[in-house]
Amino acid sequence: MPAVDICFSPELLPLYKLEGRVAVIVDILRATSSIVTALANGVTHVFAVAELDECTALGRQHGCLTAAERNGVQAEGFDLGNSPFGYLDGAIVTRGRAVAISTTNGTQALRRSLGADAIIIGSFLNLQAVADFARGQQKDVLVVCAGWKGQFCLEDTVFGGALAERLADTFDVRSSDATLAARHLWQQARPDLSGYLLQSAHVRRLNHLEAHKDFEFCLRLDEYPATLPIWREDRLVLLGDR
Amino acid sequence: MPAVDICFSPELLPLYKLEGRVAVIVDILRATSSIVTALANGVTHVFAVAELDECTALGRQHGCLTAAERNGVQAEGFDLGNSPFGYLDGAIVTRGRAVAISTTNGTQALRRSLGADAIIIGSFLNLQAVADFARGQQKDVLVVCAGWKGQFCLEDTVFGGALAERLADTFDVRSSDATLAARHLWQQARPDLSGYLLQSAHVRRLNHLEAHKDFEFCLRLDEYPATLPIWREDRLVLLGDR
Repeated sequence: MPAVDICFSPELLPLYKLEGRVAVIVDILRATSSIVTALANGVTHVFAVAELDECTALGRQHGCLTAAERNGVQAEGFDLGNSPFGYLDGAIVTRGRAVAISTTNGTQALRRSLGADAIIIGSFLNLQAVADFARGQQKDVLVVCAGWKGQFCLEDTVFGGALAERLADTFDVRSSDATLAARHLWQQARPDLSGYLLQSAHVRRLNHLEAHKDFEFCLRLDEYPATLPIWREDRLVLLGDR
Repeated sequence: MPAVDICFSPELLPLYKLEGRVAVIVDILRATSSIVTALANGVTHVFAVAELDECTALGRQHGCLTAAERNGVQAEGFDLGNSPFGYLDGAIVTRGRAVAISTTNGTQALRRSLGADAIIIGSFLNLQAVADFARGQQKDVLVVCAGWKGQFCLEDTVFGGALAERLADTFDVRSSDATLAARHLWQQARPDLSGYLLQSAHVRRLNHLEAHKDFEFCLRLDEYPATLPIWREDRLVLLGDR
């Protein structure tokens, strides 16, 4: 029976075996939620980079849109911020375009997971798509939490617990303490996910920046139940796309 | 208001500030529980080392007892195993002696915490002593979980949550997601700590080795409410001893 494990920080990835596993990259607030939203709404592919200047360079190189924030607002000279609503409310047409996104924590998690058999993007929005893919693969799953500057963060962990819960019937979700703990936290959080995560230091910081609308959106379960971003060579594409 | 933070793995310590903080080293099963039991029962001081041969060398150098296990049984040529009962049931007289203990995870956690203002040893057995010391210092507290081969482990985390709970009236226990999560896990675990921790992979492994008696002992809350092992130069001594 394949197992679900959870790595709470990209800094801990050297301790985990990646070969033979499916890595699920998670940065709920907001990188992976935005990537899922982008691909669900017609963006053709996404480049993920850590630094603003890499993002600008990729934008020029590939003629794609650029997305970045600094201190909670859209960075100067970029087409979009980091909000999933950038792909929804149409101030800029994103459908049919590629996007280069700057995300420090998310890029770390992704780059360090390159040894995995498959790298996919997880969020509450596409929880079912992630679970379906894992079931189809029948390989061990490693949830890689982007965390907050390398440290444990509550919302990514709770997502890991939610995924373990969905897979509990056909995966081993008991042989890792991280998975056990995440599942307990998910069980506590589920009745009021938004209220529960509002305790988090990171979430409170985000709310200060009046991004509460983003926060509520990123917690919607199965908003895009069939959208699975997957890593191909140097970019994230929708599973099934070439 | 000083804060309580929890570092889930020694591998993550480079991300944390140690200066100005009290580091609480935790390896519930069983290194720190055994160290507390040893000092509470008349052992004069404890050396902690990672490797068996270092342990033997220290024993020779200081003329002290040696304690080590491999695969759950006392290692050949050593005076004691890693069970706290080694300091209780008197097969060997330990009172008035020094002991060199071999503990891989615990030594890692300790060595990497040397930048802290004070390094103390925590376990359920001396939870109150740890809380009292922290209150007296009025400095930020960092619980350093020894973990299991660098990975998250449930029992050390739940201890961190128990300590945060004890300190919640006069410490900030809300600004770290790790502390929030640990406190939630402690609140779930408290009604039946032993039943809760029996889920853990590491605990189940330990129980296989018929160390259930150790496990139950290590979970006793406040068995030694005034015993505080503290790091002095190169060894652990009882707070108050020279």
